[in-house]
Amino acid sequence: MNEFSALGTEALHGLREDLRKDYARFQERGLKLDLTRGKPSAEQLDFSNELLTLPGAGEYRAADGTDCRNYGGLHGLTELREIFSPLLQVPVEQLIASDNSSLSLMHDTVMHAMLFALPGGSVRWVDVERPAFLCPVPGYDRHFAICEKFGIEMIPVEPTADGGLDIDEIERLAASDARIKGLWFVPKYSNPTGVSVSEGHAARLAAMNAAAADFRIFWDDAYSVHHLTDHHVTVAPILRLCAEAGNADRVFVFGSTSKVTFAGAGVSFLGTSPANLQWYLGHIAKRTIGPDKVNHLRHARFLGDAEGVQKLMEQHRDNLAPKFAKVQEILADSLGGTGIATWTEAFGGYFISLDVLDGTAAEVIRLAKEAGIALTPAGSTYPYGRDVRDRNIRLAPSFPPVADLDTAMRGVVLCVKLAAVEKLLQQS
Amino acid sequence: MNEFSALGTEALHGLREDLRKDYARFQERGLKLDLTRGKPSAEQLDFSNELLTLPGAGEYRAADGTDCRNYGGLHGLTELREIFSPLLQVPVEQLIASDNSSLSLMHDTVMHAMLFALPGGSVRWVDVERPAFLCPVPGYDRHFAICEKFGIEMIPVEPTADGGLDIDEIERLAASDARIKGLWFVPKYSNPTGVSVSEGHAARLAAMNAAAADFRIFWDDAYSVHHLTDHHVTVAPILRLCAEAGNADRVFVFGSTSKVTFAGAGVSFLGTSPANLQWYLGHIAKRTIGPDKVNHLRHARFLGDAEGVQKLMEQHRDNLAPKFAKVQEILADSLGGTGIATWTEAFGGYFISLDVLDGTAAEVIRLAKEAGIALTPAGSTYPYGRDVRDRNIRLAPSFPPVADLDTAMRGVVLCVKLAAVEKLLQQS
Repeated sequence: MNEFSALGTEALHGLREDLRKDYARFQERGLKLDLTRGKPSAEQLDFSNELLTLPGAGEYRAADGTDCRNYGGLHGLTELREIFSPLLQVPVEQLIASDNSSLSLMHDTVMHAMLFALPGGSVRWVDVERPAFLCPVPGYDRHFAICEKFGIEMIPVEPTADGGLDIDEIERLAASDARIKGLWFVPKYSNPTGVSVSEGHAARLAAMNAAAADFRIFWDDAYSVHHLTDHHVTVAPILRLCAEAGNADRVFVFGSTSKVTFAGAGVSFLGTSPANLQWYLGHIAKRTIGPDKVNHLRHARFLGDAEGVQKLMEQHRDNLAPKFAKVQEILADSLGGTGIATWTEAFGGYFISLDVLDGTAAEVIRLAKEAGIALTPAGSTYPYGRDVRDRNIRLAPSFPPVADLDTAMRGVVLCVKLAAVEKLLQQS
Repeated sequence: MNEFSALGTEALHGLREDLRKDYARFQERGLKLDLTRGKPSAEQLDFSNELLTLPGAGEYRAADGTDCRNYGGLHGLTELREIFSPLLQVPVEQLIASDNSSLSLMHDTVMHAMLFALPGGSVRWVDVERPAFLCPVPGYDRHFAICEKFGIEMIPVEPTADGGLDIDEIERLAASDARIKGLWFVPKYSNPTGVSVSEGHAARLAAMNAAAADFRIFWDDAYSVHHLTDHHVTVAPILRLCAEAGNADRVFVFGSTSKVTFAGAGVSFLGTSPANLQWYLGHIAKRTIGPDKVNHLRHARFLGDAEGVQKLMEQHRDNLAPKFAKVQEILADSLGGTGIATWTEAFGGYFISLDVLDGTAAEVIRLAKEAGIALTPAGSTYPYGRDVRDRNIRLAPSFPPVADLDTAMRGVVLCVKLAAVEKLLQQS
């Protein structure tokens, strides 16, 4: 296809006519499709249906004899923590298992830091004037929503020209200002770009100078086992790197089985330094007498060991890879060479990050909506919803069946093209 | 038995000798018994073992078609909320179902009120100088621990001479000071006294003048269906009373199945006014994408309806009533007429509140500990652990088998008598 920007005004007018007709026809189909959230499909959930009858009749004892039905055990079940310890690269004794949402663990960690000084810190964040977090962009809207809730200022960190992490800028900012208390970070197959952190960058995050003694990396390892290809990315063991760099308390590691077993009925994990863990458990002990250990037992029985998790993830990959391939295929066929869009191709995770012509993302999303295709709201991959270039769209291919995905993506590329042509004509 | 206080010094000396011998013999048995916490026994947990294989193969759809395995649904499953709506006296649309701990719901409500002004309030509690809660005593240590965590001052409200709620004092205090933001309240079969609130008192709590516009009653209906006799106490529907009195936002109602199904793997409930619920859900939406709906479905299938809950509770009663009777029997046989102890006899709940001779509770607990019987720490039924008269001990008969309970209680009464005699001799 030709570069759109190379087209003359007349050619653009002609193209717009064609695209408008295509769009009108598409709209007439009265579709209702949804590419908004990274939800597993029903087929993926089926892979874990054994959980629906587990732990099984008369089965309620943990390996150590604990009656999982009763109160107690703030750390969660040992055998479950043992399964996820190697996957999250956290020693078992520093890893706790909790309820169904790692988002809750992140939220509660921030909320407690608002009211109780962290190890190494001397002040609760609620008493800090304009506490701030660094937010590599594009990023995860639910991370940003936590900061917004607590009035924590978000400082976006744009990627480098080649789409990589701007580690220099992160180092510069973290060292510059003691009110910068945190960094949101998805280390592997990130949401939404699919990028994974290099060992060198992980080491720099662990070792860098932070002006705030209570600076923390919120290391959301949401996609640690969520591969889409044979190339299984490994990221550096951040907890160990931090300890080796003399910053043992710098990181909170989060993980969950939301996209491994059941999205709404899985288990979550928090791994961190002994001092951080003591701080966290000390506060959480006033909140709960312990997590749902029967669900821990259910998961431990179902998954078996770390290898069991990897095997289950292969089923997910077999299901997801064709969906991702379908999106890539349509993007390449329809937008390749047009110069109006770029997109990511990840080795894993749940998303494709699509950058459209500057100033057209909101319009693409509006056009898609009016054609019955729900996309994540414009700007949602940016703090405060502010995508200053108005160009990023997060595509979530997991939930719809392939046929729907095909239809939806044909609609999306049509909207991308139509919005681009309109924009180019405005500018011409 | 004779009133101890009527005994002369010589008789007391003789009694002390006998008791010391009995205590030494008891100690020699090297027992290890625990009456500390209101934990269900293994037999009680067995009543709900069907949950271990529910919701069942291929069963994951809620009545409205929701796939319970996936994300979503902040309110929790409708069919579960329908079951508990009549039991907690909260309209379904004002009742949400959550994860395994109502303590967490109470904690999170207080914690959010620290950082976000409640409906009707103009200030977050973290900005209030010395915010305070009213705490009828003796009460529940985990309520008090939440206040202590957040630096909320606790104002104990002693019972009236007849052991009832001092509603006059509560009214006086609530009206007197805008920094009084809350009241911890267990309306039925209270922890630890077993007392239930009268309709008149409930109406006064609902209607009383509170100096703080954001004053809230934390109505912990932990024992709503936990009867021990044929006399099923009913308490007034506090949410309705508050609304009728023009104080619709005054109350948060909490409940759970911790002592209905599995203590560690049940479900919890929060019922409140539409404005409070909107406030709560608005904040909690940043914390979670929804509770564990599979566990909701599991519970809904197992319990069926409100009647199913009541039937299950009859099994609990059949199991618990003989344990409570055993404790009552030993207390009456050994301490009746001695004038050194009084205790409660409740129509339900999980505890017996034992008042020993003033100034001896800590000593009784120490003696018991050294004889291998764990009792709740002295003072734990009071804010800050301060039982100024040093007399209250909470007995939790549910967990041990009857034979152990028998042994433990014979040890406890021995300790009560020995401590009393020592005290009387000191004073003589």
